[in-house]
Amino acid sequence: MRVAVYLPAEDKTQWWVDMLQGLLPGWDVIPVHSVDDPQSIDFAVVWRPRTGDLARFPNLRAIISIGAGIDHVLDDAALPKGIPIIRTVGSDLTQRMREYVALHVLRHHRDMPRQLRAQAELDWHAIVVPVAGRRTVGVMGLGNLGAVAAQTLAGLGFSTRGWARSAKSIDGVECYAGAGEFDAFLDGCEILVNLLPLTDDTRGIMDASLFDRLPQGACVINCARGPHLVDGDLLAALDSGQIKQATLDVFHHEPLPTDHPFWTHPAVTVTPHVASQIDAETGGQIIAANLLEFARSGTCADVADAERGY
Amino acid sequence: MRVAVYLPAEDKTQWWVDMLQGLLPGWDVIPVHSVDDPQSIDFAVVWRPRTGDLARFPNLRAIISIGAGIDHVLDDAALPKGIPIIRTVGSDLTQRMREYVALHVLRHHRDMPRQLRAQAELDWHAIVVPVAGRRTVGVMGLGNLGAVAAQTLAGLGFSTRGWARSAKSIDGVECYAGAGEFDAFLDGCEILVNLLPLTDDTRGIMDASLFDRLPQGACVINCARGPHLVDGDLLAALDSGQIKQATLDVFHHEPLPTDHPFWTHPAVTVTPHVASQIDAETGGQIIAANLLEFARSGTCADVADAERGY
Repeated sequence: MRVAVYLPAEDKTQWWVDMLQGLLPGWDVIPVHSVDDPQSIDFAVVWRPRTGDLARFPNLRAIISIGAGIDHVLDDAALPKGIPIIRTVGSDLTQRMREYVALHVLRHHRDMPRQLRAQAELDWHAIVVPVAGRRTVGVMGLGNLGAVAAQTLAGLGFSTRGWARSAKSIDGVECYAGAGEFDAFLDGCEILVNLLPLTDDTRGIMDASLFDRLPQGACVINCARGPHLVDGDLLAALDSGQIKQATLDVFHHEPLPTDHPFWTHPAVTVTPHVASQIDAETGGQIIAANLLEFARSGTCADVADAERGY
Repeated sequence: MRVAVYLPAEDKTQWWVDMLQGLLPGWDVIPVHSVDDPQSIDFAVVWRPRTGDLARFPNLRAIISIGAGIDHVLDDAALPKGIPIIRTVGSDLTQRMREYVALHVLRHHRDMPRQLRAQAELDWHAIVVPVAGRRTVGVMGLGNLGAVAAQTLAGLGFSTRGWARSAKSIDGVECYAGAGEFDAFLDGCEILVNLLPLTDDTRGIMDASLFDRLPQGACVINCARGPHLVDGDLLAALDSGQIKQATLDVFHHEPLPTDHPFWTHPAVTVTPHVASQIDAETGGQIIAANLLEFARSGTCADVADAERGY
């Protein structure tokens, strides 16, 4: 089997080539830019592939996304149709996401940003907040990551809601489904976590109209994709006080340009797309296992639904 | 029944008097400083009582600590012997403590202090840490609060240990007991949480000798009592790099004096004794219920063991 690897940074590509080669003895793993025999490529392992790269390989059996999302693959306008796209998920990625969500919901719940400001001012000022059971948090998106995040928040004692396109049932989580129940989901939601897939339906969903339906002073956390958020609408909502604080892990352009107002806004916490970032060794092991499974059986559990977009 | 109330701040005393009076119709609730008939007092509800205040009441049936700890009562050198001391615990206090412990363990685990410094420098620098299952955290003290904190950390996926004076068994937590197993408990413990009661055995337990037995770069969280910690030893361990970061909620003197180096140390997070601070209304409800139960039956579930000190 021949595998072509592409990541935007050339040194990272080489690092992944070497690692996957070590995990796939007997296979042939090479960088996309070294492929001189395109019809020999069986699999492509990619992060943000360049337009047309994948179309060069006529005998491609599957595309492997280095990550849980496949939007960065679907963005390729010349993407060949009908080729299975395999997501890189696995328990490590889910675990990291639940850590991130728990950390940032708790930070907003206990108002750590204000507590840290008090420390900077040598101010012994006790911030007493409601107990978690009297705090309503909501998770948009109840897929692989969202369902576990919602369960984790419920386990921490929060009054937890979830919203997804289709009806779900999760222990301890009040589930809402579809556009018809979106208003009810948002009403009273004090901390909102976005874990939706990025599709035409969800692009720009975090806009002024959404912020206005949250209670005044709500906090929002975006750990899905940058284009879910209308940046200017969030800045306006922060400035008006409708939204109190935001934690953002994903952005329209990454790395976030240094002149973007999010970097220095006092009510915004910026993290560099690390919410569920697994160490590369773990990611490589998951990808190698999926490749071996797909080569053996012609499919694997982590094949995405390209029609649906995730 | 007659109840005397004392808190160090006079306006707070009056606020508590009014609140408890509202919850105890038919009882007589007054501030300690207004008591002109000391033998009429059945109960004293106190926080950090002054030496000798309680000894003035010859017919005292029980002392109620406004908080989970009773050390601030035992500190009264003239404390009358043999009078039951009732702690103010309850699910709200336990829940708040588990929120605090989860938040600060996750903050250290994901190295939020460094992530926030990167944001301040507009630095898109991904900090990738081990997944929680490969991170060992330890909780010293497995009483009411410690056991629930340890369970919460295990539930978040951490490799979790606990240590207590006597042997305990907690699902998902590796338990160590007594002085003989203290070294084994500390060995490899990357994030250490202190929830011990303050007794002669535990005073000053967080000293250089303890820090040296943790792995280099460990983080410590003290949310029990200030005198558990030898302040100078922590500052030395932070400066040498043996300890990477500390979160402190409790101090030898509270409020923490503004010239104390903890306030401005870049590796120390100071919170103003809020870890399990319940809103006063909730505390008042718990205290009123305990008073009614004690008046009816002569005891209640939250009577502390004054010999043991907690």
